[in-house]
Amino acid sequence: MNNSFKLNAVIIVAGGSGKRMKSQIPKQFLLLRDLPVLMHTIKKFYDFDNETEIILVLPENQFEYWENLCLDFSFKITHKLVKGGSERFYSVRNGLNSIIRKNGIIAIHDGVRPLVDFETIKRGLESAFLNKAAIPVIPELSSIRIIENENSTHFDRNKIRIVQTPQIFDLQIIKSAYNVDFSSIFTDDASVAEAFGQKIHLFDGNIENIKITTKFDLDFANFLLSKRN
Amino acid sequence: MNNSFKLNAVIIVAGGSGKRMKSQIPKQFLLLRDLPVLMHTIKKFYDFDNETEIILVLPENQFEYWENLCLDFSFKITHKLVKGGSERFYSVRNGLNSIIRKNGIIAIHDGVRPLVDFETIKRGLESAFLNKAAIPVIPELSSIRIIENENSTHFDRNKIRIVQTPQIFDLQIIKSAYNVDFSSIFTDDASVAEAFGQKIHLFDGNIENIKITTKFDLDFANFLLSKRN
Repeated sequence: MNNSFKLNAVIIVAGGSGKRMKSQIPKQFLLLRDLPVLMHTIKKFYDFDNETEIILVLPENQFEYWENLCLDFSFKITHKLVKGGSERFYSVRNGLNSIIRKNGIIAIHDGVRPLVDFETIKRGLESAFLNKAAIPVIPELSSIRIIENENSTHFDRNKIRIVQTPQIFDLQIIKSAYNVDFSSIFTDDASVAEAFGQKIHLFDGNIENIKITTKFDLDFANFLLSKRN
Repeated sequence: MNNSFKLNAVIIVAGGSGKRMKSQIPKQFLLLRDLPVLMHTIKKFYDFDNETEIILVLPENQFEYWENLCLDFSFKITHKLVKGGSERFYSVRNGLNSIIRKNGIIAIHDGVRPLVDFETIKRGLESAFLNKAAIPVIPELSSIRIIENENSTHFDRNKIRIVQTPQIFDLQIIKSAYNVDFSSIFTDDASVAEAFGQKIHLFDGNIENIKITTKFDLDFANFLLSKRN
């Protein structure tokens, strides 16, 4: 794909241990059609721009499994393997610290979102060049309640956006932002950047860019892929 | 199904005009496997308890289409047809006003949620008997941002619940609650009951009880049904 803006690096975070899926195999390794989930994700960014540096953050005890998987599937796309941490926050930080370049634009993406599309990456890249921090969001279409103590109250869904990845940042800013102590409010990279004082810009995500965290999600992803082909 | 609590009536609201789906045919009439969406929904409540009064609220200009559809599909489940209004609020109110009985427990359900399961209805029924107003909710698993003016900020997803239907109420309470002027904040029945001063109780919904409002949703519903069989 020919892009006017360069994505210098992408950190693909895959910390899943397989507990939530009640599966022996962590979800990032499960087969989605012909390839493990994580290979789809890596391939998407490689196909988007084969000059983007690809950094894969994985629990260290999964390195050997992954390397064998790459052999089994003859998976040849060059990527740097980085050791994950006990929280997504630490995994991303390890990924950021592994980047040698001093500036540029980088993406942080969930390894278990293999269905991300080129148009979403492109929109994010353009917005990050302009705004330093850009994240994909989709509207909330359901009625929503907010829980406060023992009670719940109706909340205006038009004020809510559902956050996806890739979240795209100016490298210097996101590296500085991650130079803090972990907090449980950090459920994504934008929340870390925001705590650092960075204004977050929103761009349109894609409803099909689902996160595969359950068997149900994996089945659905298989279904979506079968529809595309 | 054998239930200790009786659901006296269900109002099934199907107001869709087909605009959002870019389809000539309103989404409630589209084919889900072997049957139009709306017939699945009606059948679910009939199968749950064949003594429940079924009230279908539909735009008046779709009555003839619906009646022909019932002939085509030899659909024989008894239901009362009630004229819809310009907003979901008015449709539900028309449905409530069509109920002759003075008290009891009634459900209000989206016509385009055909995948509701018996267990959800049962949980709601039990909660409504105890609490007068009960709605199904599921957790929010995505990162969330709240929009305020031109800005957005990170929000704790643990405080959010996604609301589904059937919403189940004491008939007298929900009828009284609906005796108000329409407000755009009324996106569901709980918001109307809450504005009337009724405390809303939450029970566990089901992630598969999706609302079919787009082509994507319909494809997904077909996928879910194919997995069950």
